[in-house]
Amino acid sequence: MNNNIHETYEQAKKWIMEAGQKIRLKMNEPLEIETKSGRNDLVTKLDKEIEQFFASRIQEKYPHHRMIGEEGYGDHVTDLKGTVWIIDPIDGTMNFVHQQRNFAISVAVYHDGLGVIGCIYDVMADNFYYAIAGEGAYKNDERLPLLNQERTLEGTMLACNHFWLCTNKLVTYESMEKLVRATRGVRTYGSATLEFAYVAEGVLDAYMSMRLAPWDIAAGMILINEVGGVTTTIYGEKINLLSQGPILTSNVKIHREIIEYIKS
Amino acid sequence: MNNNIHETYEQAKKWIMEAGQKIRLKMNEPLEIETKSGRNDLVTKLDKEIEQFFASRIQEKYPHHRMIGEEGYGDHVTDLKGTVWIIDPIDGTMNFVHQQRNFAISVAVYHDGLGVIGCIYDVMADNFYYAIAGEGAYKNDERLPLLNQERTLEGTMLACNHFWLCTNKLVTYESMEKLVRATRGVRTYGSATLEFAYVAEGVLDAYMSMRLAPWDIAAGMILINEVGGVTTTIYGEKINLLSQGPILTSNVKIHREIIEYIKS
Repeated sequence: MNNNIHETYEQAKKWIMEAGQKIRLKMNEPLEIETKSGRNDLVTKLDKEIEQFFASRIQEKYPHHRMIGEEGYGDHVTDLKGTVWIIDPIDGTMNFVHQQRNFAISVAVYHDGLGVIGCIYDVMADNFYYAIAGEGAYKNDERLPLLNQERTLEGTMLACNHFWLCTNKLVTYESMEKLVRATRGVRTYGSATLEFAYVAEGVLDAYMSMRLAPWDIAAGMILINEVGGVTTTIYGEKINLLSQGPILTSNVKIHREIIEYIKS
Repeated sequence: MNNNIHETYEQAKKWIMEAGQKIRLKMNEPLEIETKSGRNDLVTKLDKEIEQFFASRIQEKYPHHRMIGEEGYGDHVTDLKGTVWIIDPIDGTMNFVHQQRNFAISVAVYHDGLGVIGCIYDVMADNFYYAIAGEGAYKNDERLPLLNQERTLEGTMLACNHFWLCTNKLVTYESMEKLVRATRGVRTYGSATLEFAYVAEGVLDAYMSMRLAPWDIAAGMILINEVGGVTTTIYGEKINLLSQGPILTSNVKIHREIIEYIKS
């Protein structure tokens, strides 16, 4: 794998750009997609089509690689041995339907459980975030600086959804109210992969989500890694890429502070 | 006023574009703004400079017009007689500092209390939203369709910040938790003027905020009006543009539904 990492990255990028172009073309077709239900159908259809596109391309070009995808066109993967692609064809489907923007294609390549390539493509904004393990993270070929490790919670722009403050089984209301008040500001964008990319870019300082699947975080974790950030469960445990759960990503200091709030 | 409305709009747009260009130039200067405190200073300085720019241009070109501005360089306005400009030189200062994007210039012109011109300029995305009373709302010269008046709360993408779910004096926690769960999704973008523009554009269906000032809503209200939406206090009362308070903007149906939740 190591020798071919750049070739694999170039191939992944090419497929992602091709997929992005497919989506934009469909998005701009007037047809019967003007209604919300029309757009619901479109995103469901595209989600499947794009995942099938990746599945067939990967199988053809890299027959020994396996794939995990949201829509189920991948392999039945129960371990991360060898090379595994983890793909979300369209992350942020509600944004797709309501906003016709702010959604992304996420493609990650893991080798023996280690993230080697992470790509997040904001399709409508045409912003391509990517990282290759050990070589830094980029946005449109501009290298992203390392996260500011001095920043603490009081200077933090946190992304999380509003359900963290509704009754839930993960955290107490009191700890979340204190946490929200302790930050500088809270945002909600509705796309986990883009929220990861924004943390890597430094326009958000932390992101927490209640229930994320491998395809929501696989690429983002690699980007965060490359800018010196850390991703764990909201209790500070190592992420298991074969299961779903609540996650937290940020610089090291903020990470520690948020976990203290959550555990309190 | 009526005869000159298009001339005034063209003039306002010209000044806004000039102001936007000033901001982008400063934004791209490397200098000492790389730190957050550097960017805090920059936005404070620019906020004042841009408002002074509008104040002096308006006074020179339209000596009989008055101006209300966030930074206090306008007139001491206690009524809305005659022509009054209502200006927010940079809305979304926290986004400016943390994200270097997602902030806007907001300029509204009212005549005898009625909104006649509303402009919201997303400076970094170069998106210009505007409306002239009775002539519709536009985004970059593309006319925005009327809001979907059939949409109800269950199909709503609502924008509000997380403090609505923290202890507050405006609403009960129970009513807000129910409201949030009743929507299709909740977003938080951190710029009132852009959130108004997004509702006008239909990428959000409703926006509620706890404490907005005239310059946060003056332009947005005109846009919303032109696409058939409604803006009131969160209790359904008429907005008083000379005071601050909690606001709600959306289509008519969702507006009624949200007020029911708030009053419950």
